[in-house]
Amino acid sequence: MKELADISPQLLREHIRAGEFTGNTSGFAPGFVQCNLVILPSKWAADFLRFCQANPKPCPLIACSAAPGDTGLPTLGDIDIRRDISSYRVFRDGVLSEERADIVDLWNDDLVSFALGCSFSFEEALIGAGLEVRNVTEGVNVPMYRTKIACEPAGSFSGDMVVSMRPFSPANAIRAIQICSRFPAVHGAPVHMGDPAAIGIADIHAPDYGDPVSIRDGEIPLYWACGVTPQVALENAAPPMAITHAPGCMLVTDKRNSELAVF
Amino acid sequence: MKELADISPQLLREHIRAGEFTGNTSGFAPGFVQCNLVILPSKWAADFLRFCQANPKPCPLIACSAAPGDTGLPTLGDIDIRRDISSYRVFRDGVLSEERADIVDLWNDDLVSFALGCSFSFEEALIGAGLEVRNVTEGVNVPMYRTKIACEPAGSFSGDMVVSMRPFSPANAIRAIQICSRFPAVHGAPVHMGDPAAIGIADIHAPDYGDPVSIRDGEIPLYWACGVTPQVALENAAPPMAITHAPGCMLVTDKRNSELAVF
Repeated sequence: MKELADISPQLLREHIRAGEFTGNTSGFAPGFVQCNLVILPSKWAADFLRFCQANPKPCPLIACSAAPGDTGLPTLGDIDIRRDISSYRVFRDGVLSEERADIVDLWNDDLVSFALGCSFSFEEALIGAGLEVRNVTEGVNVPMYRTKIACEPAGSFSGDMVVSMRPFSPANAIRAIQICSRFPAVHGAPVHMGDPAAIGIADIHAPDYGDPVSIRDGEIPLYWACGVTPQVALENAAPPMAITHAPGCMLVTDKRNSELAVF
Repeated sequence: MKELADISPQLLREHIRAGEFTGNTSGFAPGFVQCNLVILPSKWAADFLRFCQANPKPCPLIACSAAPGDTGLPTLGDIDIRRDISSYRVFRDGVLSEERADIVDLWNDDLVSFALGCSFSFEEALIGAGLEVRNVTEGVNVPMYRTKIACEPAGSFSGDMVVSMRPFSPANAIRAIQICSRFPAVHGAPVHMGDPAAIGIADIHAPDYGDPVSIRDGEIPLYWACGVTPQVALENAAPPMAITHAPGCMLVTDKRNSELAVF
């Protein structure tokens, strides 16, 4: 599938829609924003929207449905939200019940879609600035940790923040903070650096999600608010039905990463 | 003299010029840029200018004379560089030879003046953002250290970088990096953080210049390129004559700190 890497987001979504592309979207359509997806019944959507607004670092909302039942997200491209993700996860009462390639027969006029920023965008900016992103060079998923940093609750949505971690030399850590500060729509600057215990991480080498990465002598771990946070809040809220993307199988949009830079 | 604190830079310079204000300018004319001053014979000035351009973090040049012998720096206000500093230092062959209230009778048509950005500007931005600047709250001079970070040499000017240190909680350290990144003309973002030994500082509690400050549990020391660096380069170059401000007795300009923000 590597010959597809440089194709446009439109063409990639066509392949996904036709069932010809079924995997992880990481590295495909470089330069374009990829999003976390959350779909909820309208009764739950209002609280989730408030949760995102109250917790913009872990839940940076890039787009949501104009009205319940809308299958498009026109600001992100010509999208059919029922088919344009390579793998969906369906949760019932907060519990994962199935993974599927489309949600056409689950769709109804009450569902609301949310597209949230994802770390792929800022990792691209870091790499573009000549920084080494350890999980990328080591070819593993970024290490993620549950913390004791409480999110601001909204209705039934609540939970502690999940963070992702990337280690850098001190000089590159300063540079990484500068670069990511330009991109508040994709988690922005780190929320913490240094001592993992200060935010409730017991063992930096044993992440709660993803894979461990090497941390070299003299490096400082930087911790970013992570898009797994809304998934934890979703499990805690346990709505009768919720649909998300499967990990790494993101909504690929027509929006350029560079459009998200605030300066 | 505290009743003078809020006066304009123009009026403060008038008091200095008349010999009615003789002390440290820290805290006076808040909101306006204060500068480090270096005055050199033209033969040495060209190399010093190159040294500043090659080392913009420790030597952020804000203005210099349009021609040798000029006593004004018109972009910084109506300045008489021979009288508008409350205390000057005169170096002969790189060695401090005297401190004096004006340099009128030392002035000649071959001298070139350089005004360099100073940490007062970014400390004001940090405090304005609600951050605690330890040396300010503890009422001492900021701790400064010689490092093993070599400056880019230019002609006879060379030396290791001197840094100033301010400790912050991790979250405030991230904020401080963001804030100072807006102000490259006054040293900009820190050059290092964390382990002092990594940049050749043997004992963080024994600064080479200034005073030690408290570092609390969990705080991260941030290190900024410091305006003492050009003074060290000046000592190394040892021109027959050089004139600087005395520590803390800065050139107070009409330029607003907020004008220096690049975004």
